[in-house]
Amino acid sequence: MKFLDEIKFDDKGLIPAIVQDYQNGEILMLAYMNRESLQKTLSSGKTHFWSRSRQKFWMKGESSGHIQEVKEVFVDCDMDTLVFKVDQKVAACHTGYRSCFYRKLEGDELTVTGEKVFEEGDVYKKS
Amino acid sequence: MKFLDEIKFDDKGLIPAIVQDYQNGEILMLAYMNRESLQKTLSSGKTHFWSRSRQKFWMKGESSGHIQEVKEVFVDCDMDTLVFKVDQKVAACHTGYRSCFYRKLEGDELTVTGEKVFEEGDVYKKS
Repeated sequence: MKFLDEIKFDDKGLIPAIVQDYQNGEILMLAYMNRESLQKTLSSGKTHFWSRSRQKFWMKGESSGHIQEVKEVFVDCDMDTLVFKVDQKVAACHTGYRSCFYRKLEGDELTVTGEKVFEEGDVYKKS
Repeated sequence: MKFLDEIKFDDKGLIPAIVQDYQNGEILMLAYMNRESLQKTLSSGKTHFWSRSRQKFWMKGESSGHIQEVKEVFVDCDMDTLVFKVDQKVAACHTGYRSCFYRKLEGDELTVTGEKVFEEGDVYKKS
C-alpha cells in the first residue's frame, strides 16, 4: 500500500494517532501505531495500536469491547501524525470516561469535566 | 507550578500537544512542548512549542502572525498528552490550510479536503 510507505514513522517506528469522535469532534485519546497496527487498522476498519508501556500490539476494545470503528483517516502536512475519526463504542478511556481528556486545567488545578460512562471494575475483570 | 511537575515528559523531555479549534472542534495540528514551552504557553496564553527538526523553542505565529490564543487546556488519563483548545488566527498550517490535517485517505489516495486560507508565498518571506 503506497500510503503506508509515505507515512513517516519516528525513530522507534511509531506514529502518533489522534482519535476523534466522528460525530461531535471530541478528542478521545492519543495512542501510537507502528506499521503493523496501522496496516491492521486500515484493513479491518477497527483501531489497533502499539503499546509503548507493554511493548505490545493491541486492538482498542479487545478487553473491554469498547472498540473504535474507523470512519475517516486524515494525515498532516508532515505525514507524521494521523487523525482517526471513529465511532467509539461506550468510552475510549479505561478509567470509565468517554474521553481520556476528562480533566481540564483551571489555574494550577485539574477539574474533572468529562462524562463518566462506566465503572472501571465492571468492565475490566481483575485477574 | 504543581501541574508542570505532574506532567510526564518523554525520554526526550517532550510532551505531544494536540491543538484544536475551540469553536468547531477541528483538530488543527499536533506539536511538541518541552517544559519551558509549556510553561511559556501557560503564562502567556499563546502556544509555544519545541521544534524537533530545528531543535528550537518557537512561538506559533512568530513568523506568520498566525498565533493561537489558548482558551482551554486538557490533560489525558496518563498525564502524557495535552489538548489545547485555541482561537487560531488565520490558519494553523504553514502550507496555507486552516488545519494541518487537510488531506483525507480515500482508498490508497490522499484527497485534499481542507480549506486553503492563504498562499504560502504571501505570508512567509523568502530569505
